[in-house]
Amino acid sequence: MARVVVMYKTPKDAAAFDKYYADIHTPLAKKIPGLRRLELSKGPVASPAGPSGLHLVATLHFDDMAAAQKGLTSPEGQAAAGDIGNFASGGADILMFETRDA
Amino acid sequence: MARVVVMYKTPKDAAAFDKYYADIHTPLAKKIPGLRRLELSKGPVASPAGPSGLHLVATLHFDDMAAAQKGLTSPEGQAAAGDIGNFASGGADILMFETRDA
Repeated sequence: MARVVVMYKTPKDAAAFDKYYADIHTPLAKKIPGLRRLELSKGPVASPAGPSGLHLVATLHFDDMAAAQKGLTSPEGQAAAGDIGNFASGGADILMFETRDA
Repeated sequence: MARVVVMYKTPKDAAAFDKYYADIHTPLAKKIPGLRRLELSKGPVASPAGPSGLHLVATLHFDDMAAAQKGLTSPEGQAAAGDIGNFASGGADILMFETRDA
């Protein structure tokens, strides 16, 4: 299993972000080859210390790192990655890693 | 669905961290009531810009936020949270959020 976690920081206009993410970005992301599941945070992203400064966490599930890398470097993956700058006015941090169950 | 994501920054001694995490912390975490799954990163945690500065990402799965909060505030949850300071010499960031599939 591999995960790509996109942590979107609080944008200037949360309502505009949400509309763009739902209408434009989600369909682009779902076209990424090898994507098994797109899991989105719903409601506030909390942290024990208080507000996290994040608006949305998107977790993309792939079978393994090779599939994740292939998906992200495909034309569809590049289109989705390139779209982030169009709506993520607060910026975004991205992590990619293989996983196992403990 | 709810997720608690613990992002452990690179510790001073990665081998000691890994041994403690496997031998001591994992059994403590698995005792948290309501925990459905403990998913751990395997190998490097990458980011598009290069090294992420993270050593390990642990994702705890719960049915919903109420279950996550109940689990984390239980004696077992407090024991696991309190143990983090015993081995996470680089510190850790924690996020908690509800999720849905897109």
